[in-house]
Amino acid sequence: MAGATIDKIVSLCKRRGFLFQGSELYGGLQGTWDYGPMGVELKNNVKRLWWRSNVYERDDMEGLDAAILMNRLVLKYSGHEDTFSDPLVDCRKCKKRFPRRPDRRHREVRRGRHARLHRAAPVQPHVPHADDDIAYLRPETAQGIFVNFKNVLDSTNRKLPFGIAQIGKAYRNEITPKNFIFRVREFEQMEIEYFVKPGEDDETHEQWIADRISWYHRYGIKPENLRQHVQAADELAHYAKACTDLLYRFFPEREDEDKQYEEVEGIANRTDFDLTCHTKGGVLRFADGREIPNEHAVMKQTYFDDAAKVHLTPYVIEPSGGVDRITLAFLMDAYEEQTLEGGKQRTVLHLHPELSPVKVAVIPLARNKPEIVAVAKQIKKDLQSTGQLRTMFDDSGNIGKCYARQDEIGTPFCVTVDHQSLEDNEVTIRDRDSMQQERVAIDRLKSYFFERLSL
Amino acid sequence: MAGATIDKIVSLCKRRGFLFQGSELYGGLQGTWDYGPMGVELKNNVKRLWWRSNVYERDDMEGLDAAILMNRLVLKYSGHEDTFSDPLVDCRKCKKRFPRRPDRRHREVRRGRHARLHRAAPVQPHVPHADDDIAYLRPETAQGIFVNFKNVLDSTNRKLPFGIAQIGKAYRNEITPKNFIFRVREFEQMEIEYFVKPGEDDETHEQWIADRISWYHRYGIKPENLRQHVQAADELAHYAKACTDLLYRFFPEREDEDKQYEEVEGIANRTDFDLTCHTKGGVLRFADGREIPNEHAVMKQTYFDDAAKVHLTPYVIEPSGGVDRITLAFLMDAYEEQTLEGGKQRTVLHLHPELSPVKVAVIPLARNKPEIVAVAKQIKKDLQSTGQLRTMFDDSGNIGKCYARQDEIGTPFCVTVDHQSLEDNEVTIRDRDSMQQERVAIDRLKSYFFERLSL
Repeated sequence: MAGATIDKIVSLCKRRGFLFQGSELYGGLQGTWDYGPMGVELKNNVKRLWWRSNVYERDDMEGLDAAILMNRLVLKYSGHEDTFSDPLVDCRKCKKRFPRRPDRRHREVRRGRHARLHRAAPVQPHVPHADDDIAYLRPETAQGIFVNFKNVLDSTNRKLPFGIAQIGKAYRNEITPKNFIFRVREFEQMEIEYFVKPGEDDETHEQWIADRISWYHRYGIKPENLRQHVQAADELAHYAKACTDLLYRFFPEREDEDKQYEEVEGIANRTDFDLTCHTKGGVLRFADGREIPNEHAVMKQTYFDDAAKVHLTPYVIEPSGGVDRITLAFLMDAYEEQTLEGGKQRTVLHLHPELSPVKVAVIPLARNKPEIVAVAKQIKKDLQSTGQLRTMFDDSGNIGKCYARQDEIGTPFCVTVDHQSLEDNEVTIRDRDSMQQERVAIDRLKSYFFERLSL
Repeated sequence: MAGATIDKIVSLCKRRGFLFQGSELYGGLQGTWDYGPMGVELKNNVKRLWWRSNVYERDDMEGLDAAILMNRLVLKYSGHEDTFSDPLVDCRKCKKRFPRRPDRRHREVRRGRHARLHRAAPVQPHVPHADDDIAYLRPETAQGIFVNFKNVLDSTNRKLPFGIAQIGKAYRNEITPKNFIFRVREFEQMEIEYFVKPGEDDETHEQWIADRISWYHRYGIKPENLRQHVQAADELAHYAKACTDLLYRFFPEREDEDKQYEEVEGIANRTDFDLTCHTKGGVLRFADGREIPNEHAVMKQTYFDDAAKVHLTPYVIEPSGGVDRITLAFLMDAYEEQTLEGGKQRTVLHLHPELSPVKVAVIPLARNKPEIVAVAKQIKKDLQSTGQLRTMFDDSGNIGKCYARQDEIGTPFCVTVDHQSLEDNEVTIRDRDSMQQERVAIDRLKSYFFERLSL
C-alpha cells in the first residue's frame, strides 16, 4: 500500500488523460499545462463543489466573472504595476541577489533558498488606433472583484457582511516553472472577497479559516495532510494585516517534514487596503511610506451604513485557493498503489464520488456482440439522463483493462453487461474501493446508485 | 408586448447584475466585459448545457482544457502567425484599403462595408532567462485541440469517428469593439473538433449542422430567429472546404432583414488541413501556393486504421460557437416587455429553467419578523440541498420589488412566506410566466418543483 509522489501522479496523469504538458507537440511551453479528458472533468468538479459550497449553500454570497485583460490603471492603483519592474532582494543565507516576489516577502528567501519571481505578465496586445495599447494579464483574480464592488452592491442591494466569489485564470512570470502544475505561469484561482464592517474582520477571518479547512475534509483530504501556517509579520503581503496559509503535503518523500508541506490556499485579512486604493479620491499607500492619490477612479466605492448613517470602507477577508494545486492535492490524496492477494498490483484513485470524473462506467463484456453492446448503451443513456450520474460507455479493452482504467481514473462503480444479462436482465456491479461484485437488476440501477452515492 | 433590442438588454444587464463594462471603474477597457452575479450563472448554465449535450449525452466525445498561452510554433504552423502582420484588402465598393481578417474574407468587405480586423493578440509575456520569450494568446481554442489530438487518442483508445470538445477564452484585436458583448477582444468559445475518416466528412458535416440547430431550439431559441448561411467559396477560411454559419436575429430593429441576423456559431469542414500542418513531417499549405514544411513537431499525429491497416489523417468537422454571443442570444430571445391589465408594465425573461440563474426565490413577506425569515431560510436550505435547485433567499425589497427583480432575472418560481405560513405551513408560489399564484404545503415543495421543472 504505497501513496503518491508528484512523479507518480505525473505518470498517471499522462497515461490516463488527466494532464499533458502545454504545447507538448512543439517541445512544450514552460509553465503551462493542458487538462485532458479526465483532467477537465476533475478540475470542473473541484470548481463546481467550491462554487456550490461557497455561493449556493450560503445566503451571503454573489458570484462574478471579470475579464482577464484589464485596464492598466487597475494594476497601477492596486500597487502591482509598481512591482513589475523587478525589485530585488538579498538572500540572507547565500547572500545572492534575487528578484523579489511583489506581493510578499518570499518564504524561500527567508529560508535561504533561491527566490521565485512572481510577477504579473505585462502584455502588449497590439491594439492599433486605440488609446489603451497596453493591457495586463491579471496577476490575481481579486482585482476584478475589488473594481466591481460598487457594481455588485448596486445591482443586488446587499447589506454587510457579504462576499463575492470568482473563479478564473491568472498569470505570473515564474522564472523557474517546475513541479508539475504546482508552479506555473498560467493558473486558475478560486477567490472570495468577503466584505465586513471594520472591527468585525478578525472574527470573520477565523471563521473563514475554519470553513475552508472543513471544506477540504468534506471532500476527502486526510486531516494529517493539511496544515495551517500563520504568516509572521515579515511574510505578509503589503495589503495584509494577517494571513493563514493552508499547506498540503505535496512532497511526502522529502526528509525534512516541514518541507513536505506547501501552500494550497491562503486566507488573508486585506483590511480596507484595496477599496481605499480603488475609489474616487482614494490613496494607494506603500509600506515604505509613498502614497499615490487615485486620480482616475470614476466612482466612490464606499458602503452606506443605514443604522449608523455613515459611509464606510469595508474590510475584506480573502480565502484564495489555486484550482490547479487543489486539484493536484485531491489527486495525490486519493492515490494508492495496492498489492492484492496473489501479489497482483493495482493503482486506484479513491476520489470522493463528487470529484470523480466518471461516476459509473458501463462495460460490454463482448465488444463484438451487438445485443450486449445495445444493452450497455441503453443503460448508459438511462443513467446519464438523470443529469447527476456522469456515465461512460467503455469498450476500450477487455474487462480487466477496463477495470484497471476505471480504477486509475477513480470511477466509483463499474457495470458489466454479459451474456447472462440478456437472459436475466441483471448486470454485475463492481465497487472501486472494496472490489466487491454483486448482481443487480437493470431496472434497479438508478435507485441503487442514487442510494450508494447519497444523491 | 415588446421584444428585445441590444440597447434594452444592456440596460437590463447593468441594472440586474448580468454584465458590467470591463474595468468600468477606470473608464473601461474597450472590448472587455465583466459578468456580474446573474451573468456568471447564466453563462455557466449555457456552458454546462452545451457540455452535457455534446459530451455527456454522446458516446463519441472527450473533453479538453488547454492553456491559453501557447508556444508560438503552434500558431506558426497553424498559419495564424503569418497573418498577424496585417494583410490588407481593398473594399470593392468604397475602394478604401483595410486590414484583412486573417481567417476568412470578411462578409462586410464583400458587401462593401468596412472590414473588421480580427487578429490574434500577439503578446510578449516578459519571461527572462527563458528561450520562449514570445507567447501568444490564442485566437481560437481549436489549436489546443489539434496539437493534443495524439495525446487524447493515446490516453483514451478512441476509434474514429470521435470528437474533442473544449470551452475556453480566446482573443482577437478588434479595431472597433462594439455592440456590447457581440464584438469584443476577449471572448469565450465552445468548440468541437470531430474527427472522421476521409470521405465521411460531408455527411457528418450535415449531421452536426442539424444537431446544433436542434440544440438551440431545445433551450428555447425561437426558430424564426435562427438562420443558416452557407458560405460561398470566396467567404471560406483558408482551412475550410465548407462552412455553414448559424445566424441569430441580434438586430431586429434594422430595416434590412438580411442585416438583422449575425453569426452566433459556425460549423466548418476543416478537412485534414490542421492535422496535416501539425504533424511531424507535415506541411502547411497556404491558398496562394506557399508551403511551409513542419520542422518542429515532435510527434506524428496520424490514426492507424485497424481494418484497412493504414495510417491516415482524419478529416475534421468543427462546430464553433461563441459563449458570449450565445448567452446574448438566449437573453434577447427570452426578453419581453408586457403591459398587464390596468396598464401596469413588467419586464420578464422567459428563460428555459435550465438556463435561469436562479430556479426558485424564497421571499420573506416581513423582513423584520424573525420567525418568517427563519422559515424562509430553512426552505431555501432544503431546496438547495437537493443539488439541482439553485435557490436564492431574497429579502432585498418589498414583495413587489422582489417579484420585479426575479422576473427580470428570469426566475421561474417565487415562494413567499407570510404570517399565515406560520399557522398552516403553506406558502404562496408564483409562476413567472403566467403570474398565477397558488398555496402549497412546505413539505410538498421539493416534489412540486421537481415535477414542474421536469427534473
